[in-house]
Amino acid sequence: MASSTREVLHFPATQSKLIDPYLPFPSKNEKPYVTLTFATSLDSNLSLAPGVQTHLSGPESKAMTHYLRSQHDAILIGVGTAVADDPSLNCRIEGAGGYGGEGLTGQPRPIVLDPRGRWEINEKTKCIALAREKKGKAPWLVMCQPCKKEVRDLLESVGGQVLVVEPVVDDKPSRIPWHKLVETLAGEGIQSIMIEGGGSVINDLLSPQYFGLVDSVIVTIAPTWLGKGGVQVCPEERIEGETRVPVARLKGVKWVPLGEDVVLCGRPIVSPT
Amino acid sequence: MASSTREVLHFPATQSKLIDPYLPFPSKNEKPYVTLTFATSLDSNLSLAPGVQTHLSGPESKAMTHYLRSQHDAILIGVGTAVADDPSLNCRIEGAGGYGGEGLTGQPRPIVLDPRGRWEINEKTKCIALAREKKGKAPWLVMCQPCKKEVRDLLESVGGQVLVVEPVVDDKPSRIPWHKLVETLAGEGIQSIMIEGGGSVINDLLSPQYFGLVDSVIVTIAPTWLGKGGVQVCPEERIEGETRVPVARLKGVKWVPLGEDVVLCGRPIVSPT
Ligand SMILES: NC(=O)c1ccc[n+]([C@@H]2O[C@H](COP(=O)([O-])OP(=O)(O)OC[C@H]3O[C@@H](n4cnc5c(N)ncnc54)[C@H](OP(=O)(O)O)[C@@H]3O)[C@@H](O)[C@H]2O)c1
Ligand SMILES: NC(=O)c1ccc[n+]([C@@H]2O[C@H](COP(=O)([O-])OP(=O)(O)OC[C@H]3O[C@@H](n4cnc5c(N)ncnc54)[C@H](OP(=O)(O)O)[C@@H]3O)[C@@H](O)[C@H]2O)c1
Repeated sequence: MASSTREVLHFPATQSKLIDPYLPFPSKNEKPYVTLTFATSLDSNLSLAPGVQTHLSGPESKAMTHYLRSQHDAILIGVGTAVADDPSLNCRIEGAGGYGGEGLTGQPRPIVLDPRGRWEINEKTKCIALAREKKGKAPWLVMCQPCKKEVRDLLESVGGQVLVVEPVVDDKPSRIPWHKLVETLAGEGIQSIMIEGGGSVINDLLSPQYFGLVDSVIVTIAPTWLGKGGVQVCPEERIEGETRVPVARLKGVKWVPLGEDVVLCGRPIVSPT
Repeated sequence: MASSTREVLHFPATQSKLIDPYLPFPSKNEKPYVTLTFATSLDSNLSLAPGVQTHLSGPESKAMTHYLRSQHDAILIGVGTAVADDPSLNCRIEGAGGYGGEGLTGQPRPIVLDPRGRWEINEKTKCIALAREKKGKAPWLVMCQPCKKEVRDLLESVGGQVLVVEPVVDDKPSRIPWHKLVETLAGEGIQSIMIEGGGSVINDLLSPQYFGLVDSVIVTIAPTWLGKGGVQVCPEERIEGETRVPVARLKGVKWVPLGEDVVLCGRPIVSPT
């Protein structure tokens, strides 16, 4: 296990109380609380190039991300990120299960959106290994087709599962509408979801069609420019009448400087004016 | 005159003292102080589309921009911005010349980088009209070829001038190396320059070749996404050995929330590690 998955992180209460108003709260809502969160450079890049894991945020913002994880039932990523980064997807905040806490307390459920079964897992895949070590929950896979037997067997051996969701046929093939996905997860008892990326997932959720599904947005921005050719957060253009208009905007905004980075918290305005 | 060029702006001292450490200070430096400043969306767009003026920043950040203008000898923009936006390029902070102050106190010199003479000006061009009204200094044009007589005559009639600079012949045609440009302006008595855009000018200055010429960077970020197809700040990629590395990074960073926006102040790290 790489040392980065062993270290225990601290996120001070002076900082967490600034972020807390944007986090899930217990409610009778039928829809799970959805937090969209990611880290970019000033030029809105998530990584230097497709498939290249890029460490953008400083130690303070990293601790914040793990704090956020401790406050959600699940973390969701697209298969592009799973393949590129082999992410740990667990919570390493002090006191979480496996990091000083009992059982799997505070550990979110990793969920990988892999409609066509592109993710190849084995015992060394980080979130499989962490689940075996009881340092993270076992991942769930959301697919649009039956899962290969060896993948399903390995997942189930650590306590994970495969959810098969029918994509909307007359829409793009193997594209699950986000409402349907969130509903499916609600049916599995998930009441809060932190969506961490990558580019294609984020750009999709920023579109007018889906932005209303998001309850809060938390973006870390690092004071660097990665340059052309990176994986960028930049949604499809939005045209009203014959004019281009901003695609999305946040309200109730708070900017929290954290080390060298800033953390932007806000809530979607569903129809920006 | 549009009302937006008439209103007088205030920028409170509680805010300006946060920004002041990043502004020009009197020195014996042979090189003018260069501040690179612009406003972007979260997806690093300066405007919705080429040639479309886009109001990104809120009233507080707008007042800050005018405060910055009052602290520099000159504002420089590329001809792309001059043509697209017909910008005022004056300072409307209370107390500046024409806005409560004497003569042209605190008014920066507008400088348009127009190597091939693309800017068409007339009496209605905002910065010509403002110069006539004594609400702004007359613009200077930096060109690589002789200026059309009617443009020169109109400029000189309000007190402006044309500077002709030889481009470097074996480099791109009509591209002036930034060192040479800054040196030329120093020769004209300019000791501090605020470079405001647009996209092509900013991306050029963020490149390793020129970033060292910049003394401070001040970026306003608005909590909105403009989407694909905008004019983007995103410099050319940087490759070292065979790996992509970040193009540029800031040090001595300060994030100042201002209304709904944030203002990032920092200084270039010339070789990011
Ligand atoms: N800085 C950060 O915070 C951060 C966070 C996460 C990731 N990243 C970076 O982002 C990059 C990966 O981004 P990416 O855009 O390539 O991949 P991605 O967004 O992680 O995954 C995209 C894939 O997920 C599936 N998918 C997305 N939306 C779907 C939907 N509605 N229904 C069904 N399937 C859906 C599709 O798989 P199919 O193509 O198989 O249909 C799609 O190609 C990596 O470089 C990673 O390092 C950075
Ligand atoms: N949000 C903001 O803060 C902000 C600020 C400013 C502008 N903008 C937006 O930016 C857009 C304009 O950007 P842009 O990229 O099209 O244009 P630009 O950067 O304003 O101007 C580019 C032009 O300037 C000349 N130029 C640039 N570097 C030069 C050099 N080293 N030597 C000689 N000439 C040089 C070239 O003219 P030639 O092509 O004739 O050779 C070049 O095409 C507009 O939409 C505007 O609204 C936004």
